[in-house]
Amino acid sequence: MTKIVELAGGVGGARLAHGLQAVLGDRLTVVVNSADDLERHGLAVWPDHDTVMYTLAGRDDRDRGWGVADETWTVIEELGRYGEETWFRLGDRDIATHIVRTARLRDGDRPTEVALHLQRALGLRATVLPMTDDRVRTAVRTDDGWLSFQDYFVRRRQEPTVHDVRFDGVETAGPTPEVMAALAAAASIVIAPSNPIVSVGPILALPGIRETLLAARRRGVPVVAVSGIVGGKALRGPADRMLVSLGGESSALGVARLYAELADAILIDTLDAALGPAIEALGVRVVVTDTIMLDDAGRERLARAVLETAVAAA
Amino acid sequence: MTKIVELAGGVGGARLAHGLQAVLGDRLTVVVNSADDLERHGLAVWPDHDTVMYTLAGRDDRDRGWGVADETWTVIEELGRYGEETWFRLGDRDIATHIVRTARLRDGDRPTEVALHLQRALGLRATVLPMTDDRVRTAVRTDDGWLSFQDYFVRRRQEPTVHDVRFDGVETAGPTPEVMAALAAAASIVIAPSNPIVSVGPILALPGIRETLLAARRRGVPVVAVSGIVGGKALRGPADRMLVSLGGESSALGVARLYAELADAILIDTLDAALGPAIEALGVRVVVTDTIMLDDAGRERLARAVLETAVAAA
Repeated sequence: MTKIVELAGGVGGARLAHGLQAVLGDRLTVVVNSADDLERHGLAVWPDHDTVMYTLAGRDDRDRGWGVADETWTVIEELGRYGEETWFRLGDRDIATHIVRTARLRDGDRPTEVALHLQRALGLRATVLPMTDDRVRTAVRTDDGWLSFQDYFVRRRQEPTVHDVRFDGVETAGPTPEVMAALAAAASIVIAPSNPIVSVGPILALPGIRETLLAARRRGVPVVAVSGIVGGKALRGPADRMLVSLGGESSALGVARLYAELADAILIDTLDAALGPAIEALGVRVVVTDTIMLDDAGRERLARAVLETAVAAA
Repeated sequence: MTKIVELAGGVGGARLAHGLQAVLGDRLTVVVNSADDLERHGLAVWPDHDTVMYTLAGRDDRDRGWGVADETWTVIEELGRYGEETWFRLGDRDIATHIVRTARLRDGDRPTEVALHLQRALGLRATVLPMTDDRVRTAVRTDDGWLSFQDYFVRRRQEPTVHDVRFDGVETAGPTPEVMAALAAAASIVIAPSNPIVSVGPILALPGIRETLLAARRRGVPVVAVSGIVGGKALRGPADRMLVSLGGESSALGVARLYAELADAILIDTLDAALGPAIEALGVRVVVTDTIMLDDAGRERLARAVLETAVAAA
């Protein structure tokens, strides 16, 4: 049974994961960024884990593009009545997830155990693993100073220019045994079309992960990335602006440079076909395909292209 | 400024409190039972405090008879999906209250401080004080053994016969400084038409409270009770059956016997007028009136009757 590990952030990674799950079922493990996690109103909120979980459960809201389908908003309205800050819009169904999670964490369960409990309850076939059970928190430096990631991302709508990024706690954090076991068993490793700096970045910054990926490559386990930058723009979020303000380039080539040491191949969009030779010059094989996942068929089509690329690279 | 303190449990006490607030505004302090409090899904739930708070805020659901008006039920539905027990039906607006409370308690605020924060946010004129900042929990002994109060009350719908009642932790608990100050400043003290055993009972069982009430009487501060038993039946809840199974009588007389040492006077319903002489024989003055509070006018009418009784008893 071919096992695949995907390293993922939020929406883009979730959609690809959904396509991969359609092909692979329980042979898929998604390792998610947990450096965007936060505490709101005393509740443990894990945006990337939950986006992937809801999407794999078929419960992602496709009109809104984030959160749970069929959501309601009573609790946040009432929290505002009590003077709580409500710029982080938590829906009622989503809050139920955070309530269960917070209670279990307070009871002493590891984040990984809590994640698996939530996923089992929602009937996921694939497995979603937090990258670490330790606390890692992304902060970004802007003209207003260092901001927590969600302050920048949600409250300030990614408007400030990001001059620097750090992952607080990452030096002393470790990947979980479950993550290491999944990577050790993987027939190939996929880097999702998520923000390479603040979504995939924290996973790769965890002590031991980069070395594990390099060791996997040496064993002949292909590492395949997908560019989330299409036509110079991020499909969602601030990755394009962050790439530029941090000294890189907002293009599939800019993404490929970040992954050049790690990836055997990268899938880029047909819009970016002209960048192929420059990326191949980095030593990364290029596959040009339609990377935009508009529906279930689009998710599965990209998943199959990723898996075919992995087979070809092996 | 005449200050009044009401000792109260849930719905009956809340309705009288609403009437008293209409007359007295911020001169009313309600001391609420906290021995029914519980933790559900990791959240601190205070049924009696919240019933009184929502009612004083004009937000009690009058059709359902408990909880917040205009309530929705998304979170509890979703909690069920995660395998949580959902027999304790928490509404979404109510859950927002519990979330804010739980976060503040975890931050180290005293229960009294948390209560005052919630009440201020909802614009209450009166003050609602938890009887204690310590943990006291009611348990009832049934043929199935000792049950926590909410297990008996909500989950088993008050069906088991109660053979004994205890208030765990009450011996080492203390009333708060705020409760003692309110009692010291009270021009009269009202015992609500709440369950005398499990609602008013825990308040009176707190070390120091009974002595404080007796001392107040000796100073000429009247203590006025209202019977929640009308025509031999409790208007709500199991007080009538509990009175009998614990060896008393399900009647206004049975209630009066429990308060005979403490109360100068008791208001009983017109339906129970015939019990007047037997109650007066206990040394408790009887006022016969319409005690059923069907609407705002009924709440205020009973409140005025209580206050007139207090004035007459002073």
